[in-house]
Amino acid sequence: MKKKLEDYIVTIPDFPKPGILFRDITSVINNADGLKLAVDELDKLLEGVDYDMIAGVEARGFVFGAPLAYKNNKPLTLIRKKGKLPRETVEETYDLEYGTATIEVSKNDIKPGDKVVLVDDLIATGGTIAAAARLVERLGAEVVKMIFIIELPELKGREVLKDYDVASIVKFEGE
Amino acid sequence: MKKKLEDYIVTIPDFPKPGILFRDITSVINNADGLKLAVDELDKLLEGVDYDMIAGVEARGFVFGAPLAYKNNKPLTLIRKKGKLPRETVEETYDLEYGTATIEVSKNDIKPGDKVVLVDDLIATGGTIAAAARLVERLGAEVVKMIFIIELPELKGREVLKDYDVASIVKFEGE
Repeated sequence: MKKKLEDYIVTIPDFPKPGILFRDITSVINNADGLKLAVDELDKLLEGVDYDMIAGVEARGFVFGAPLAYKNNKPLTLIRKKGKLPRETVEETYDLEYGTATIEVSKNDIKPGDKVVLVDDLIATGGTIAAAARLVERLGAEVVKMIFIIELPELKGREVLKDYDVASIVKFEGE
Repeated sequence: MKKKLEDYIVTIPDFPKPGILFRDITSVINNADGLKLAVDELDKLLEGVDYDMIAGVEARGFVFGAPLAYKNNKPLTLIRKKGKLPRETVEETYDLEYGTATIEVSKNDIKPGDKVVLVDDLIATGGTIAAAARLVERLGAEVVKMIFIIELPELKGREVLKDYDVASIVKFEGE
């Protein structure tokens, strides 16, 4: 029987810290059929969406954003952790469970009016992707869709992102 | 006139430190034609190569490795900085100009006898990719090709990698 995407996802208990069930997408992409299925299912989420570019969030967002952009003949923008982009950037800081993190994007990469699709492997609390959306908007562009392989609904990312069009392929309940 | 890959590469002086000319591939991939050209030219370097999987080196190697693997229906393996992979790994430490860095790969992802293509955006001294090759070999697999968008020949990466089949698309001399 043909495998579904969730069949490729391996769950690792207590990573990166005790009590966390880590949903691992390396087991998806380390299989040719898994990688193809993941990219093609993400691509289906974009059917009917009018967009100018894909923006992937470091680093697993690059893994899915790059083939999506390539396949659809769109530009790919990298949303990176602070300090890795060589040109002038805008940055956003957001809260983690302990401390904060900062992401940034090159000012050159996104223009006012651009319609941007944000992609990452997983949505949990939505903090990272909300910060990525603020970056896009500070450059005068619009987030037209946010797409994810995995969603953890109990962490209520969709509440944080209620102003956006959010879609995911696999939902793990009870996290 | 049709642009060549080097036409998309922007050079940034003094990044990440004074005296370094940073060759930026974000300007390549932020253009739909640039991204397509980069992936297709890398793919040409694999013509006639018998391989089982693509392994990309974090993080820019993921950007090129993912569409290559997707396009060729091959698995993608992530070679990551230490601490980001949830399962049992092997790791290699290598020297940087100041200090050291450690990369690792999941033991599950590479099997004895696998023929592996390593991909990264740039080859300079070759230290990172040599460490990546040692990871592959410690798992009993073989590096059948190393491919890069950009090569800086004066940094003599090919000497470090003389036992491997190395190919790049754009060479910047005089670095």
